[in-house]
Formats: sequence, structure tokens, C-alpha cells
Amino acid sequence: MQIIPAHYSRPTDTIALNGFYTAHMAPETTPQHCDRLADQLTFLMAIDALKRVQRANRITAEDPAGGRRENSAEHSWHVALFARILSEHANQPVDVDRVVTMLLVHDVVEIDVGDTPLHATQDPDKSKKEAAAANRLFALLPADQGTALERLWNEFESGDTADALFARALDRIQPILLNAHTEGGTWPPFGVTRKQMVARTGHVADGSAALWAQCETLIDEAVRKGWIQQDAP
Amino acid sequence: MQIIPAHYSRPTDTIALNGFYTAHMAPETTPQHCDRLADQLTFLMAIDALKRVQRANRITAEDPAGGRRENSAEHSWHVALFARILSEHANQPVDVDRVVTMLLVHDVVEIDVGDTPLHATQDPDKSKKEAAAANRLFALLPADQGTALERLWNEFESGDTADALFARALDRIQPILLNAHTEGGTWPPFGVTRKQMVARTGHVADGSAALWAQCETLIDEAVRKGWIQQDAP
Repeated sequence: MQIIPAHYSRPTDTIALNGFYTAHMAPETTPQHCDRLADQLTFLMAIDALKRVQRANRITAEDPAGGRRENSAEHSWHVALFARILSEHANQPVDVDRVVTMLLVHDVVEIDVGDTPLHATQDPDKSKKEAAAANRLFALLPADQGTALERLWNEFESGDTADALFARALDRIQPILLNAHTEGGTWPPFGVTRKQMVARTGHVADGSAALWAQCETLIDEAVRKGWIQQDAP
Repeated sequence: MQIIPAHYSRPTDTIALNGFYTAHMAPETTPQHCDRLADQLTFLMAIDALKRVQRANRITAEDPAGGRRENSAEHSWHVALFARILSEHANQPVDVDRVVTMLLVHDVVEIDVGDTPLHATQDPDKSKKEAAAANRLFALLPADQGTALERLWNEFESGDTADALFARALDRIQPILLNAHTEGGTWPPFGVTRKQMVARTGHVADGSAALWAQCETLIDEAVRKGWIQQDAP
């Protein structure tokens, strides 16, 4: 019953998944129903791989420096709840349920591409690679669902709607909070300066002025603690 | 800035969190707004501990036997997406957004109580302990939000609405699928028999006949593979 091959996060391996659930489907289900469920389960098992994608920041732990590194699946759970709890602080009215769904799928492309830490050198081809990954993964679903989720993923990437701006703000403030609770987390190893922080996280203000005010306070505190470097005058 | 003490998942430690975000809140925010955001962030950082709660089953991996054990936060992410994708298979019409929220919070009580594997001996006081944990955790939030989420959590536990029945079905089929993709996962070590499986997972049918048909197929296959034991005649 092990039907996921060794490298199933790579495009060619999806072939190995095709037909598995159809072949094992209960006979009383109608063919159409059956095909949909088979494809849906294929997608849901393929995205299990997101639990293996490591992010740079750490989770909180008994150790004040934090525990192991966070993975992108549990990060997605966390930011989805950020949306549910913090929507009143969005600059513009948002559709919370859409934002939650957007955040649940926003990182699935990392199954193919991996996570690029915010403070690391950025790959200029990242967007292209991620778009290809979105194309591959969402195509596993029945077309109506795959198209809708890929559109939502694209909206998040473009960041040009109220929902996407707010979702992107939450995706940014969550690791700031985790760093603040794990003795600076990724900031000291990357030698991050205050100017870099503002340049890389300032767009939180586009989604929520209230949350950006909170970020500024956390950044000030981190500079005082020496976790973020003060820029040269 | 490390404000989460060593044992912050225990009730008394919430005291250490109170007031932190209020004290560090940007001065321009109004007091009422400020208090709400402070409490919301306290809750969101407290539930980070769910990432440290281990479940019995494993995640999929390159190794056919699976990888490390799954944690309850990434499990919650996974089942929330099960709800989003599989709602058409519910026996009764469901409010998908409610089901998603229900599943995002359904396991947070495990921060205090831990996860009890389905096939292990059950603690008779589990429900009481979980209710106390729900009470503690949701009380960290502003009252309106805490009350609403605790009510949703209770609805999941009671399983007496269409939304809860479907959510409980998804919470059950997800580890069955993971076991089926990791050479039986928790079934062989717990010596699970077919009758035990049906007794412990049959309620999937109350939420979705189609998904239960799929479970039966997976159970049959697992019996053939020797991962689930055939009962004595």
C-alpha cells in the first residue's frame, strides 16, 4: 500500500500516484464521484510532504533559545489561526474564510522548491519555479478545485487585493513573533540590521497598520537586546 | 524578550504572559484596541506549543515506512485542507468554513493534556482534563472570540451536528491514510485487529458514507498486507 515513491515531490513521480485511489475505490461509488475522490486524496497525500519542508526560524520551547526549526505545514496552520483571530486589525475589510484558505495553501509550492529564508540571498528564478510547482500540485485536483486554489495562490503571490495584503502581513508577523520569543531566532545568525528588517517586513503596514506598529515595537526591543543590529550612522 | 517560561503550557504559567504585549504595545493604539491585540497575540503564542505535541502516526517520507512522528499542529493543518477539499462527500450539507475553523482548533487542548493514540488505553478522565484545558486556553482571548472558539471546540467534541460529524470523520480518515502510506504505521505496533478498527473508526460513516467506503477499502488492503490482524473466526 506504499504508493508514494521515493521522490514523489518531483513532477514525474505524480504518474506513480495516478490511478491508485481509483483502482482501490469501493465498487458502489459511481465512476464520476470515484474519480473526483481519487484525485482529491492523491492531492491530500502529495501535500503531506510540506511537513518535511524546514523553515529557518525555530518554534518556541522550554529552552529560551527555542526548539527545533519550524516546518511549513505547521507554520501554515499557525498563520491560518492568525487570520481567524486578528482579522479586525486589517486595514480594509477582508473575507476571513478566503484569507484562511489562502494561508492554508500559500506554501505548498515549497514541496518542490523549498523555503527561502527571508534574510538569505534570494533566487531570481524563485517566482518562476514556484509557479511551476503550483501548476503541478493543483493539477492533481479535480479541475474546478485545482483552478480555484491556484487562483487563490496567485492572488497571495501578487498581493494586490485586500485579502492578499492582509494574508501577507500575517505571514510576515508570525516569524517576527517567533524570533522575538526565541532569543532573536534567525536575526543574529543572518546579522540582520534594523534597516534590512524594515525593508523586508515593512509591507505588514499595507495589510494592517496596527500589526505593523506591533512589529516596530518588537524590532525596537530586538535592537535593544542586540538581536537585530543598529545600522551605522 | 523571551517571555514564555519553561513550563508555559501549564495553567499557572499564563500569569507570566499576561501584560507582556500590553506593556510593549505601540503608544498610538487606543487602550481597548491595545488590550484586545495583546490578548490575541498571547493566545497565538501560547498555541505555538501544539507543534511540540507528538501523535502516534508518522508522516510520509522517502523511506516507505514513513518519517518522524506527526505533530498535532501540522495534523490540524492537514485536516483543515481535507475539509476544504472533501466537503462534497459529507452526508449532510456542511458549512465548510466552520468545519475548517473547528479543525484548526480541535486539538489545542493537547497542549495541556497530550495526544492519546486511538489504539492505546484511554484515560477515563480525558474529557474532563480536555475541557479544563479548553477553558484555560480560550480564556486567553478576548471574551467574544474565546467563547465562540470554545463553543466550536465543544461542538466538535460532542459530535452532534452535521459540521462536527463531518469534522470528526476527517480527523479519523487522515491517520488511516497516513498509516496506509507508511507500511501500516501505528497498526502493527498496537496489534490492531479488523474488528477493533471498525469499532474505533466506523463513525466516519456518520459524517461521510463515501469516505467510510474508502476506509473499508484501505482496511481490507491493510489486512491483506498483514498490517491489520484478521480476527479469529
